[in-house]
Amino acid sequence: MDVQTAIRTRRSVRQYSQDAIPEEKLKKVLEAGRLAPSAHNDQPWQFIVVKDEDKKKRLAEAAAGQSFIADAPAIIVGLALHPEQVMSCGVPSYAVNLAIALDHMTLAAVEQGLGTCWIGAFSQEEVKRILDISGDHKIVALLPCGFPADEPLPKTRKSLNEIVSYR
Amino acid sequence: MDVQTAIRTRRSVRQYSQDAIPEEKLKKVLEAGRLAPSAHNDQPWQFIVVKDEDKKKRLAEAAAGQSFIADAPAIIVGLALHPEQVMSCGVPSYAVNLAIALDHMTLAAVEQGLGTCWIGAFSQEEVKRILDISGDHKIVALLPCGFPADEPLPKTRKSLNEIVSYR
Repeated sequence: MDVQTAIRTRRSVRQYSQDAIPEEKLKKVLEAGRLAPSAHNDQPWQFIVVKDEDKKKRLAEAAAGQSFIADAPAIIVGLALHPEQVMSCGVPSYAVNLAIALDHMTLAAVEQGLGTCWIGAFSQEEVKRILDISGDHKIVALLPCGFPADEPLPKTRKSLNEIVSYR
Repeated sequence: MDVQTAIRTRRSVRQYSQDAIPEEKLKKVLEAGRLAPSAHNDQPWQFIVVKDEDKKKRLAEAAAGQSFIADAPAIIVGLALHPEQVMSCGVPSYAVNLAIALDHMTLAAVEQGLGTCWIGAFSQEEVKRILDISGDHKIVALLPCGFPADEPLPKTRKSLNEIVSYR
């Protein structure tokens, strides 16, 4: 699938089929994150794949009770190892690094026929407790992943004229 | 070009051909950012395309003197309109939103035969001054863009085993 099509058809999937993700497809998704760029090529990340039913349910509860998260066959958790790092421009590099890697994964997932949904509404402390993650690290997003079971809605976006200017 | 190939071949381009970017290609790159997801679909972003020679030179100076930036025919500047917004997980959403949109652009650029390079080392104040940007907004990255004129180097990345775990 070409990049433009993946970008055009990617959407937030909030209903998942109960079909397991074939290992080969999941590996391609993770591989896309592995190949992502990061500041100084530090790759300051870990990705935790949660398939355990009980843990998924607890993650959904910790994510403002968004129960569909637990229905996905896997939840990919993007973990920043150095949340203290800030670029010279003043932007926290951990957030940018992790977003790039996870964005790579969302597009690779579309190519594999899979859906994902960016989840940023969750309790940092609670999710770390559920996954037994050390205090120094910071979770940037949860990415439920699986075959979509809902219907695509049309994308609503601002026009290029509204968001692009030239100098 | 399929997504996997774009991800595998994307690299940080630090030498650009002097050929201008055809408008149609640049538009496809910007369109990829336009279609990106953002928290609550707020699309809290502006993208400034800088082609002016003098401004490009001043941007390169403000970016720790990385002079190759000025050689790119265009520099896409990713601007967050609400840098104060933080997700409930404690991660600044502006950085994640902008990184997603710019990452979409880097992959769309590869599909168009173009190269980019993530630049996070720059003076926030100085770049805002050069581009006459209001104090409330925050630049997340500069993305020089153009046809690559250098040779690809092999990607060095940690193995999947080093960065992925299962729960």
